[in-house]
Amino acid sequence: MTTEFSFTLHKKDGTARRGTVHTAHGDIRTPAFMPVGTVGTVKGLYMDQVKATGADIILGNTYHLMLRPGAEQVAKLGGLHKFTGWSGPILTDSGGFQIMSLSKIRKIKETGATFQSHLDGRKYELTPERAMEIQQLLGSDIQMQLDQCIQFPHTEKEAEKAMQLSLRWAERSRAAFLSVPQPGHGNFGIVQGGTDEKLRLASAAGLRQIGFEGYAIGGLAVGEGQELMLSTLDFTTPTLPDDKPRYLMGVGTPEDLIESVARGVDMFDCVMPTRSGRHGQAFTRFGRINLRNAKHAADTRPLDAEHPCPALSHYSRAYLHHLIRSGELLGMMLLSWANIAYYQTLMQSMRDAIDIGTFDDFRAATHEQWKRGDISV
Amino acid sequence: MTTEFSFTLHKKDGTARRGTVHTAHGDIRTPAFMPVGTVGTVKGLYMDQVKATGADIILGNTYHLMLRPGAEQVAKLGGLHKFTGWSGPILTDSGGFQIMSLSKIRKIKETGATFQSHLDGRKYELTPERAMEIQQLLGSDIQMQLDQCIQFPHTEKEAEKAMQLSLRWAERSRAAFLSVPQPGHGNFGIVQGGTDEKLRLASAAGLRQIGFEGYAIGGLAVGEGQELMLSTLDFTTPTLPDDKPRYLMGVGTPEDLIESVARGVDMFDCVMPTRSGRHGQAFTRFGRINLRNAKHAADTRPLDAEHPCPALSHYSRAYLHHLIRSGELLGMMLLSWANIAYYQTLMQSMRDAIDIGTFDDFRAATHEQWKRGDISV
Repeated sequence: MTTEFSFTLHKKDGTARRGTVHTAHGDIRTPAFMPVGTVGTVKGLYMDQVKATGADIILGNTYHLMLRPGAEQVAKLGGLHKFTGWSGPILTDSGGFQIMSLSKIRKIKETGATFQSHLDGRKYELTPERAMEIQQLLGSDIQMQLDQCIQFPHTEKEAEKAMQLSLRWAERSRAAFLSVPQPGHGNFGIVQGGTDEKLRLASAAGLRQIGFEGYAIGGLAVGEGQELMLSTLDFTTPTLPDDKPRYLMGVGTPEDLIESVARGVDMFDCVMPTRSGRHGQAFTRFGRINLRNAKHAADTRPLDAEHPCPALSHYSRAYLHHLIRSGELLGMMLLSWANIAYYQTLMQSMRDAIDIGTFDDFRAATHEQWKRGDISV
Repeated sequence: MTTEFSFTLHKKDGTARRGTVHTAHGDIRTPAFMPVGTVGTVKGLYMDQVKATGADIILGNTYHLMLRPGAEQVAKLGGLHKFTGWSGPILTDSGGFQIMSLSKIRKIKETGATFQSHLDGRKYELTPERAMEIQQLLGSDIQMQLDQCIQFPHTEKEAEKAMQLSLRWAERSRAAFLSVPQPGHGNFGIVQGGTDEKLRLASAAGLRQIGFEGYAIGGLAVGEGQELMLSTLDFTTPTLPDDKPRYLMGVGTPEDLIESVARGVDMFDCVMPTRSGRHGQAFTRFGRINLRNAKHAADTRPLDAEHPCPALSHYSRAYLHHLIRSGELLGMMLLSWANIAYYQTLMQSMRDAIDIGTFDDFRAATHEQWKRGDISV
């Protein structure tokens, strides 16, 4: 069965959007949160747990996978879906962000990026064409253009230069993507330009002109703070086509997700639920709970007795506290699972609220509940 | 429902024994392998996975649990079963072995052992009476006497001194155990005496005279090698009562398990399946497989396509290799799970073979299969 890659916008509630992305490996209900499976595993979770939390799609990192086990190797093993056992849609980024954040020595030229692997110091080159080839070898359903990411803070000049280069790379990425027929697979452009309105609008206009199956907003959540991020969304999302999915890369906290959905974003990814989980922090409908804290040592209540996920409802805070304090794998496993489950519940609640036109009420009530916290303590 | 603690010996096949231990929290089919749940978690596994592999009983470590979260704390939280979510039988050791192997500074006196915690250097005293009190607070179904463990190699004099002290501690442990009624819970004595026949026989005789619900063999698998261990079993197990379970502590490899069952041992525990799993080694019916090895990088076969456990049959060796090389939690989770599952299959096969009187054939065929390895490679 081959589906054409497409997006259906079902409903708008204010600026918030409810849609479905159709891909070769199934549908993605939006707004969607994509758990991050960096090297082909959502850290600490079994894929059937990921699925059962309600996640429709996961993300893989081109940078990590090209270094180990290598794109050609994954292709030989049948592609990323077969390799990992995840049968739903997969989005891969292009490597641009990790080249900025992880690689040891990097050089950005017009042709592409050269960098040293953070694993063994080996030198690699990543051009827009190679980034697309890698993603095609991986077989991902959504393939991102190569872009140049820059550190925050930066000068306007740096932001403009990187944005312009990313636009030229967008054009080359697009051509490379189109050169190989991949029915049901889509290619997203990435809007860059820091927090500058003029740059963001120019970037979005350039990408629209090239034409993609979806549009990502990159270069945010890199230290600029929530306020600047949201104000950047305020002027960026309205310039993106209404009939294509919008993906805010690397975001974020539950608060970020609600506020960004309110501003018309459809898709998200972030390591936060799994990374924070490994370090003992739980995200719940009562707000954040730091399980390392001694006050949980004798607390026999689960994180959320009402939640369908066993990680939230079947294990006492006292036990979770003990596991985390003891550095036990099960503590990391349970809190990563709990956080992914909570994130998916949050997305489902947002989808439901938009469906029935009560998104603003939901948003206010959720903020209120987080502020109130766990009053039964 | 309260069961009296008892042991039923169903069948003997040569020296190998097939039985059932009845406890307050359910039955244990013997020969039995007990996965080690040091601090209240079998490392890297969910308790329902442990159960599904066929494990009837798990082990908890008194030493670790007394340091964190503390025995009184576990009791306040409802005991170890409730705290961990494991509803089947639990055996706890007495702390003697970890005082020898883990604590920083230790002093053994007639009264008991004083030692410094390996976690924070705090000083603790463990007497036979306190060891039993801790295990009663934890609520374990099988509670071990406090014994003095010594390093290998040792002089005969050291072995004799430790054995004699362990015997006196056995008497005090037994009195302490009997002072609190715990229907359905049992107390095991521990035979010590190194690899010396005279000492082992004296130890066993002393313990039989005190009288326990079961008898453990301690002080083996501490570096003496398989041959010495088995020859020690050869003269030790015949001196233990036929109508009580026999538990060989801290053993071992699959080979050790078969050879010890052949010598009349009923119960085992060992960290090997989980510890080796975390380090990339799988135990299978084809023998050991080191997943770190580069030869697995392109191998799409699972560890054992015929095995009912998903960890053995649903994941390619190439994926496991990648996960282990990448240091991913899922790699440790899957191989720990696979190893516990294989160990339980091995125990079930031994129980089946004894039931139908073909243990020697099974033992020969299994050694043959391990030697042959995975011929389809």
